[in-house]
Amino acid sequence: MKFKFFLLFLLLLKYAGLDAQTVQQVEVAPGVIKLNFGVADKFNPYNFCDQKPAVAAMKALPKGKLPFDIKDILISITDRGAVVEVPLKDDEQLYGFGLQVGSFNQRGLRKKPIVNDNPLNDLGYTHAPIPFYVSNKGYGILINTSRYTTFYCGSTNKLNNGAKALSESNGGNSVEELYKNKANANGSVTADIPGAKGVEVYVFEGPELLQVLQRYNLFSGGGALPAMWGLGVKYRVKADFTQQQVGKMAAYFRDNHMPCDVLGLEPKWQTTAYSCSYVWNPKYFPSPSQFIDTMKQRGFHINLWEHAFVNPASPLYEPLKTKAGNYLVWNGLVPDFADSSASNLFANYHKQTFVEKGISGFKMDECDNSNLAYGSATWSFPEHSSFPSGIDGEQMHQMFGVLYQKAVYNIYKQMNIRTLLDVRASNAFASSYPAALYSDTYDHDEYIRMVTNSGFSGLIWSPEVRESASIKDLMRRSQTAVLSAQTLYNSWYLTNPPWLQINVEKNNKNELLANDKQIEADVRTLLNLRMSLVPYLYNAFADYHFKGIPPFRALIVDYPNDKNVYNISNEYMIGQGLLAAPLTDKADERKVYLPEGVWYDFNTGQKYTGGKEYSITCNYTGLPLFVKEGTILPLAEPVEYITPSSKFEITCRVYGKTASTTLFEDDGVTFNYEKSTYNTVALNYINNKGMAKRSGNYKLKRYNIKGWQVIQ
Amino acid sequence: MKFKFFLLFLLLLKYAGLDAQTVQQVEVAPGVIKLNFGVADKFNPYNFCDQKPAVAAMKALPKGKLPFDIKDILISITDRGAVVEVPLKDDEQLYGFGLQVGSFNQRGLRKKPIVNDNPLNDLGYTHAPIPFYVSNKGYGILINTSRYTTFYCGSTNKLNNGAKALSESNGGNSVEELYKNKANANGSVTADIPGAKGVEVYVFEGPELLQVLQRYNLFSGGGALPAMWGLGVKYRVKADFTQQQVGKMAAYFRDNHMPCDVLGLEPKWQTTAYSCSYVWNPKYFPSPSQFIDTMKQRGFHINLWEHAFVNPASPLYEPLKTKAGNYLVWNGLVPDFADSSASNLFANYHKQTFVEKGISGFKMDECDNSNLAYGSATWSFPEHSSFPSGIDGEQMHQMFGVLYQKAVYNIYKQMNIRTLLDVRASNAFASSYPAALYSDTYDHDEYIRMVTNSGFSGLIWSPEVRESASIKDLMRRSQTAVLSAQTLYNSWYLTNPPWLQINVEKNNKNELLANDKQIEADVRTLLNLRMSLVPYLYNAFADYHFKGIPPFRALIVDYPNDKNVYNISNEYMIGQGLLAAPLTDKADERKVYLPEGVWYDFNTGQKYTGGKEYSITCNYTGLPLFVKEGTILPLAEPVEYITPSSKFEITCRVYGKTASTTLFEDDGVTFNYEKSTYNTVALNYINNKGMAKRSGNYKLKRYNIKGWQVIQ
Repeated sequence: MKFKFFLLFLLLLKYAGLDAQTVQQVEVAPGVIKLNFGVADKFNPYNFCDQKPAVAAMKALPKGKLPFDIKDILISITDRGAVVEVPLKDDEQLYGFGLQVGSFNQRGLRKKPIVNDNPLNDLGYTHAPIPFYVSNKGYGILINTSRYTTFYCGSTNKLNNGAKALSESNGGNSVEELYKNKANANGSVTADIPGAKGVEVYVFEGPELLQVLQRYNLFSGGGALPAMWGLGVKYRVKADFTQQQVGKMAAYFRDNHMPCDVLGLEPKWQTTAYSCSYVWNPKYFPSPSQFIDTMKQRGFHINLWEHAFVNPASPLYEPLKTKAGNYLVWNGLVPDFADSSASNLFANYHKQTFVEKGISGFKMDECDNSNLAYGSATWSFPEHSSFPSGIDGEQMHQMFGVLYQKAVYNIYKQMNIRTLLDVRASNAFASSYPAALYSDTYDHDEYIRMVTNSGFSGLIWSPEVRESASIKDLMRRSQTAVLSAQTLYNSWYLTNPPWLQINVEKNNKNELLANDKQIEADVRTLLNLRMSLVPYLYNAFADYHFKGIPPFRALIVDYPNDKNVYNISNEYMIGQGLLAAPLTDKADERKVYLPEGVWYDFNTGQKYTGGKEYSITCNYTGLPLFVKEGTILPLAEPVEYITPSSKFEITCRVYGKTASTTLFEDDGVTFNYEKSTYNTVALNYINNKGMAKRSGNYKLKRYNIKGWQVIQ
Repeated sequence: MKFKFFLLFLLLLKYAGLDAQTVQQVEVAPGVIKLNFGVADKFNPYNFCDQKPAVAAMKALPKGKLPFDIKDILISITDRGAVVEVPLKDDEQLYGFGLQVGSFNQRGLRKKPIVNDNPLNDLGYTHAPIPFYVSNKGYGILINTSRYTTFYCGSTNKLNNGAKALSESNGGNSVEELYKNKANANGSVTADIPGAKGVEVYVFEGPELLQVLQRYNLFSGGGALPAMWGLGVKYRVKADFTQQQVGKMAAYFRDNHMPCDVLGLEPKWQTTAYSCSYVWNPKYFPSPSQFIDTMKQRGFHINLWEHAFVNPASPLYEPLKTKAGNYLVWNGLVPDFADSSASNLFANYHKQTFVEKGISGFKMDECDNSNLAYGSATWSFPEHSSFPSGIDGEQMHQMFGVLYQKAVYNIYKQMNIRTLLDVRASNAFASSYPAALYSDTYDHDEYIRMVTNSGFSGLIWSPEVRESASIKDLMRRSQTAVLSAQTLYNSWYLTNPPWLQINVEKNNKNELLANDKQIEADVRTLLNLRMSLVPYLYNAFADYHFKGIPPFRALIVDYPNDKNVYNISNEYMIGQGLLAAPLTDKADERKVYLPEGVWYDFNTGQKYTGGKEYSITCNYTGLPLFVKEGTILPLAEPVEYITPSSKFEITCRVYGKTASTTLFEDDGVTFNYEKSTYNTVALNYINNKGMAKRSGNYKLKRYNIKGWQVIQ
């Protein structure tokens, strides 16, 4: 009798969904389904996300449809960890895994997104290791884990899985023949998560790829809307510049009418940097407050380099000593950012010492890990580190950059001040943080590919310009910088701007280029083009925030069914209607594929029929940019820097017979837009007539439409 | 009352050593202490080792002494896995971790020895990922695990560990300045073994570094003694050669008196190779038995290329189908070699089909894993694979090469036939397997470094010669090949031997070098030098087997306290008295450090005082070799190939006034030496007189000492 009741009890448990072997499934936001199996880790990326999903905007998206039954996602837990198998169709193309460096279309590859500053070999290592991939068939899969996870993207074949037999091969006579990629008909993406006792999988629906990304960004709170000045030019000065020398550099920019919004200070502003004291070094900056104020008066924002490893000489050391990992980095504490009390201590100190004194942003360095940076293995903490919160070193590595961002961003958020930060590591659900990733790697082709990859994971990527091998290299890199989320010249080891001398050694000896003024003028032209594009870019970022549309994205996002774009990683969309196709120093011509429709060369107005590849060129002072028919490109007269009262005199370039766009208008520096204090300026061109219509609650009219220029 | 008894019970448990928190410690062989904590993994390297420790030889070694208290080795188990911390003194130098490619002295580095065919970036990836390091202070530590393990070799600093404070730094103005290695005073090597619920640590005592290695090799059953013909020259023919073409190549060797003992066949001898059928392809080899016999008559041994992934077309497929992993590789089964019944099936088929027909060895390819070999991610099985035996994919990856070796070696062992195999992966406790590692990487400097590293872990490494960039490159690589454990020319994609045409394309068009006969003669000179060295090398291998002395080893092994050799990875000892210092195509001169004592140039007899560095050169037909004073170098008249009846006419080169050595004499092809069927020929030169004294049970006198040549 008793035994019968027990069986009944088990049966009841099973039907009540309490059976541990059942995958739990719940729609956590419109088109976002969370699967849960086993005991998921506490320190997962979503648990660290404070942002509420932008439910209303998600609801407004067309309903998604998965190309498979969600029940066919298999999750298993073994002694080794968790394994997730997601169905994959033969013709699907896969993208994502964060800021990938070496690859774009991930179909057929094995990827291990691990945080790393030196992502060689295309293992999947990256500054932003996001366990999230998307399919051109209109869905995305995110494994909500901060454990090191390997994704086999249709690159394995199971025994007895009924997959098609491979054609047999009896080898070859050359390495190429022997090792040629044997295409594989495997029907799944498999994620291997060693150590996990359970796992959460987030499924993002489309119906199209673009909507998948919109849902992801909106679920993460909406994309970041940087301070408007963040879209201007950032220049980082030499590490050993004194307050006076920075002042001189500031004067150089204004005297020579080189646009610049932000000056970044490098390590030596602190008394000790490896590890950090977070204390102004009086030798270099005897009067920091006065310095910040003077700079502000001249229209410069000041950004401070730092990292999060706390030196014994820092006022933060004692308070953080009990809230840190059990290993030191450069003799500095590793704050336990997984514990909000540690983050708050760190943030409050920064708030009082820097932000309240007028510091506009930080460059958060060294928060990634390293393989073997420059022969040293003492970079960062070991993976077996333990922290008071209970997070281990492996998980902390993956999350460190995003937790650091969160700590610093919250200072600004609480003060109702916007910013644009720099950071060297990030992770999932971080779309809302206005922090641009940067890298010490410097391959221009990779930097371009990273723009296209950034859009798959809610990231802002800054392909910075440092030294150059040639004038051509400098100009091509500058074009890419102008056509990216953040235009940054990082001169931390250069006395003079790189356009006055590309060579490091000569630059630091003040041996300037013979034609320095000509190069300076050419760079000025490019920077002015950047400033002309600011209203357009600002609107693209507003779309990122309110609609989740990545401002910079691969062509596949807009054209998911065009086979010709499956593997294009050196062209990308900017906002609604611009297509960038940067050149490098390798050649003065390049192939550009233009998708269906009609396109116009930004520089010449030349018209192209889409669906074809063209060979194009672009001189140094133009932009390798194409405009889609139906676009209004609002080009502003360039300003040298942006303040809340900056006005933009705009000429609307109309491409085609009927075109439209919008402009987003607000103060550019507060979060008041969250309380609807902003305007939308609708621009329409119909029947040979341009019309601007402003709506909204913001008082100031910052955009003046002074003319229309039609290109047909 | 009951509670008291319970406490008493706990107390008893504790003193009975059953407390799970106590590290168990037991001396498992003379000078080898095993520590055990928690529940160690079943599939660990030592569990797979069949060989009994050579206890008598170990007992004969001087007693070791650890530079720390063994109780100071700390082991902890957390949710994440196991962590082992081993004391480390400031002045210790560390070596090992298997066939490391990018680094030599591991002090200060982070190393993750993971099996891999493409070990870039110096992460620690290697063909032979051995979790074993040794210290110049006279001990070795082996973590007996097949899990992916990370070693922090004094590269981390703990919070509150009382380590010396680092000098603070406030950054620099250049990458070099900023990132220079900040030396670290940490007092431990830490091994991180994620996933482990327990761990075994083997501590190998010295007293000196050499004895540590001796103990390791003897504990593994003694080093491998290859078939004597294995010390001759191996040549691998082009993959698409037919039986007839191989015959022609054989004739070339004999007609031109180029020494050659082994011809290796590449993939196309099988009906299907990726994956393997293990069935002769009648198109290329219509009569294999006849072919093998003919070759044998001409003094050639035949070696067959294969790998272990079993094609559906193979007779092995059906029997192995239930004894294989759940993922396929190139549509082939992955045999569960951790299950002896699978190994036996595989071995028995090979025995009957090949070995009993006269096949002398195999080249066991593809048993390593790959990052992303040639753009394909379908290389090998995923880490989350499961196998019927219970081993998982990660552990199987680490052990696959060694289990494959074991399966194939046992065929020969059972048949009382010796061999020398080729293999692309190995692991710990494999010293007794006569299998030479090889690699697709081809950097000559790395190949030389791998000779020095091989000796720290009981490995045989074969720096093979393929194509060359220049004649100089060919000759320098040939010299290194001659001065290595196996002299191998791998021409799997070359129609003609590389010395007739170094360029691949021209070679395959039969466009030979203008001076091909001259180059051939130069290579012949080198190969003849190899054949002259065979008795010396054979004796070095006998010392490897009976005494555990690595035949090829870094200078630090013989001179552990000479600071000048701490980082020398481009010189190595061969046998008792030879020091090799190979040159590459980069320069015709190089620096050679000669340790204390007196040394002689092998080619010129020039005398050098040790303890100093010299600039030396070596022409193409000499050997970059130095002989230690007190050495007798027994040089044989070169034979073209070696049979059990080969006799060696030996001239003893005596270096110095008093010198000695031994020669090991047996049939060279059976294991009868294990039953003492061998001779030792003691060679002594004292008071201006040379004496040879033979002792032992072997009947045939293979060495004839025909003269003494004194160099002083």
